[in-house]
Amino acid sequence: MGQKVTVCRTEHFNAAHRLHNPAWDDARNAKVFGKCNLPNYHGHNYELIVKVTGEPDAETGYVMDMKALSDLIRELVTDQFDHRNLNTDVEVFRQLNPTAEHIAIVIYDILRPHLPQHLELKIILYETPRNAVEYPA
Amino acid sequence: MGQKVTVCRTEHFNAAHRLHNPAWDDARNAKVFGKCNLPNYHGHNYELIVKVTGEPDAETGYVMDMKALSDLIRELVTDQFDHRNLNTDVEVFRQLNPTAEHIAIVIYDILRPHLPQHLELKIILYETPRNAVEYPA
Amino acid sequence: MGQKVTVCRTEHFNAAHRLHNPAWDDARNAKVFGKCNLPNYHGHNYELIVKVTGEPDAETGYVMDMKALSDLIRELVTDQFDHRNLNTDVEVFRQLNPTAEHIAIVIYDILRPHLPQHLELKIILYETPRNAVEYPA
Amino acid sequence: MGQKVTVCRTEHFNAAHRLHNPAWDDARNAKVFGKCNLPNYHGHNYELIVKVTGEPDAETGYVMDMKALSDLIRELVTDQFDHRNLNTDVEVFRQLNPTAEHIAIVIYDILRPHLPQHLELKIILYETPRNAVEYPA
Amino acid sequence: MGQKVTVCRTEHFNAAHRLHNPAWDDARNAKVFGKCNLPNYHGHNYELIVKVTGEPDAETGYVMDMKALSDLIRELVTDQFDHRNLNTDVEVFRQLNPTAEHIAIVIYDILRPHLPQHLELKIILYETPRNAVEYPA
Amino acid sequence: MGQKVTVCRTEHFNAAHRLHNPAWDDARNAKVFGKCNLPNYHGHNYELIVKVTGEPDAETGYVMDMKALSDLIRELVTDQFDHRNLNTDVEVFRQLNPTAEHIAIVIYDILRPHLPQHLELKIILYETPRNAVEYPA
Repeated sequence: MGQKVTVCRTEHFNAAHRLHNPAWDDARNAKVFGKCNLPNYHGHNYELIVKVTGEPDAETGYVMDMKALSDLIRELVTDQFDHRNLNTDVEVFRQLNPTAEHIAIVIYDILRPHLPQHLELKIILYETPRNAVEYPA
Repeated sequence: MGQKVTVCRTEHFNAAHRLHNPAWDDARNAKVFGKCNLPNYHGHNYELIVKVTGEPDAETGYVMDMKALSDLIRELVTDQFDHRNLNTDVEVFRQLNPTAEHIAIVIYDILRPHLPQHLELKIILYETPRNAVEYPA
Repeated sequence: MGQKVTVCRTEHFNAAHRLHNPAWDDARNAKVFGKCNLPNYHGHNYELIVKVTGEPDAETGYVMDMKALSDLIRELVTDQFDHRNLNTDVEVFRQLNPTAEHIAIVIYDILRPHLPQHLELKIILYETPRNAVEYPA
Repeated sequence: MGQKVTVCRTEHFNAAHRLHNPAWDDARNAKVFGKCNLPNYHGHNYELIVKVTGEPDAETGYVMDMKALSDLIRELVTDQFDHRNLNTDVEVFRQLNPTAEHIAIVIYDILRPHLPQHLELKIILYETPRNAVEYPA
Repeated sequence: MGQKVTVCRTEHFNAAHRLHNPAWDDARNAKVFGKCNLPNYHGHNYELIVKVTGEPDAETGYVMDMKALSDLIRELVTDQFDHRNLNTDVEVFRQLNPTAEHIAIVIYDILRPHLPQHLELKIILYETPRNAVEYPA
Repeated sequence: MGQKVTVCRTEHFNAAHRLHNPAWDDARNAKVFGKCNLPNYHGHNYELIVKVTGEPDAETGYVMDMKALSDLIRELVTDQFDHRNLNTDVEVFRQLNPTAEHIAIVIYDILRPHLPQHLELKIILYETPRNAVEYPA
C-alpha cells in the first residue's frame, strides 16, 4: 500500500544483574546505585518489545513476519540473556554497567545488522512494570 | 492552552480471520503464512487504541470528547468487525489479506473522514498481547 | 514440608468458534446465542491457566516442574487448539457446543489422565479479558 | 555512549474530580460533560507515566536515576494529588477544568522546572484503563 | 454434563468516596482512616468481578449467559454507582462506611435476589490494582 | 455485619536466585532444574499477593487496614528480600531450595505470627507473569 506501519513483538527473559562502576570505590557505588549495587545480585523479569517500521509487502501484507521477528529475537537476544547473570555471563556487560539504558542499546546493536536496512528499529525494555526505557528515544 | 495533546481511547472486538494470498498456490500460502493460513480460520481478541491529537478546546478542555470518540469507533469499526469473520463478512478484506498491518490501515481509512481535519489520527492494534501494529508509523 | 501448595501455569491459544445447538432451528440459535451464533465464526485469544495442587517434593521443592507442566499443556491442548477452528477442527466440539464452560471441561478431561493421581487439577480459561470460567468450581 | 534514550517511570494517585465550566449554565454543563459533570464528584485511579529523554551519563549509565525521578514525582505531584479532590483541594484546578488533558499539562508544568534543561519531558496519564492522554503530543 | 463450573464477568465503575465513622470525632477518624478520611473525597476506578457457579445447561452449555449477567450487573450495580459519590449519592452508604469490604457485601446483596437460587454467587472488587476484596471469603 | 470477607494486598520485590539441591551432584542438578540451576543466578520481579480473611470490624468496616497490612509485608518480607540474592542473602534459603513453592511457604511462616489468630492467611506468589503458586492450596 506504500504506507509505513510499525510492527511490535514482545518477548521476555529473566536475568540477574547488579549496577556497579569498577572505576569507583565501594562507598561511591553504594551511594549512587543504592540497593541496585548490592554485591550478590538481584534480578528482573525483563519484558522486551522490539518495534520494526517499514511498508507492508505487497504480496504478504507484512512489514515483517512477526514469527520470523520472534525467532530472531529469541536466537540473538533472549536465548543469550535468559536465566543468566548479565554481569558475569554476557560478555559485553563485563565492561558495561547493565543499566536498563545500556541493555536496550546493546539489544539494538545486536539486532540492527540482522534486519534489512530499509526497516527502522526501536527497542522498549521494561525492567519492572514501573521502570522502562526506549531506544532510540 | 494552545498546546497539542494526544487522547487515546481503547476499544476491542473479537473476530475470526486467516491469512491467504489468492494469487499463490496452497503450498506457498502454507509456507509463508504457516498456522495463520489454516483453512477453517482462527481468531483473536483485537485490542484497538485510537489516538487523536490536537489542542484542547478553550471551553471544554477536551481535544475531543472521548465518549464521542468511543461512540464513533463503535459505530464505524467495532460494530462492523465484532464477532465477524474478517475474510468473509467485511467487504474490504475479500480483496485484502487481513494482516494486522492491513487491518490498522483499513481502520485508519474508515475513521479519518469522520474526524475534523485539524486533528491527527493514529491507530494501534493488538492482535495478541505480544503482537501489535501502529499506523501511521 | 508436607503442606499442600498450588502451582499455576498460564498458556494461550488463538482459535475461531461459534456457538450453535444443532437441535434448534436458526431463529432459536440466533435468539439464544446472539452474535456468538453468527455463521462464519469469530475468535478469541484464549488465556489458559492450569492449576495443580499437591505437596512439594522433598528433594526438588516442586509440586510439579512448571516446565514439564507447560510442555504437557502445549502437547495435549494448545498445539491441538491453536490457530484452529474449534467447531470444525477439534473432534470433540463437532458434537459439543464450544462455550467457555465446555472448553474448560474438555481441557480438564484431556489433562487429568496425564497427571499423577495424587495431584488435584483445576482449569481457568479466559475467553476475553472480561469473560472467564473455572472448572471444577 | 552518546545516544538518546528515554526512561519511563510509572506512579499513581487516586483522586476525585468533576468536569464543569463555570462560565456555562447547568444545562449546558450537563449536556457537554454528561456523567462527568455530576455535582458530587466521581473519581479515578490515575496511572501516571513520566518520560525523560537524554543521553546516558558516561559514569552511571543512567539518563536519570529512576529512583530520583520517582522521588521527584511523588514529592511534587502524587503527594499533592493523591486522595484529594482535584477541583477543591488543588489550587490550579479551581480555575481550570480538570480534564485529563489539563491534568497532564499541569503535571508537565510542575515537573519541567525541576529537571535539567537538556532532558526532554513527556507525560502520559491514564484516567481509566481505556482513556489516556499524552503531552506534549 | 452435570459438573459445576464458575463463570466470571468483569465490569467497572468510577466513583468518589471517603471513609468516615460518624460516631467518632474528627481526630479519631483521621487517625484510623488517614488519607482515606480527607473531607472532600477521593476516588477509584473500581474493577468488579462477579462469579456465578452452577452446572452448565444441557441445551446451551452455559452456566448463565454472560451477556445476561453483564446486563444485570450494569442495570443493578454499575449504572447506580458509576460517576457517583458513594457517600452522598448511594442511599445505603449514607449509613454504612464505604470500605471495599462493605461495597462488596452491598453488591452481593443487590445481585443475590436476581439470580436463580441454585446458582452460587461471589464478588471480587478491586479498589486499586493492589487492593482487592472477595465476598463471601 | 458478621460475614467473612477476604482482603488482598499486592506487593513486589526483585530478587536473584538459582535452584540447586546440594545433596545432588552437578549433573543431576542440571538435569532436574535446567536453566534454573545455572551457577551465576538469574532473577525475577516477584509479585506477592497476601490474602487475609475475617469479619469486617463493626466500627471501621475493615477486615484489616490494608495500609497496615502493606506496612507489615514491607517490614517483614519485601524489605528483607528486595534486591537481594535469595540463596546467599536470606538465611532460610541457605538450607532450603528457593522454589516458588518454598518462598510462598516461608512468607506464610514469617507473616502468620504477626497477624491476629482469628484471621486466615493465604499467600499467592507470581515468579513470572505465567508462573504462580498459592499456599495454603
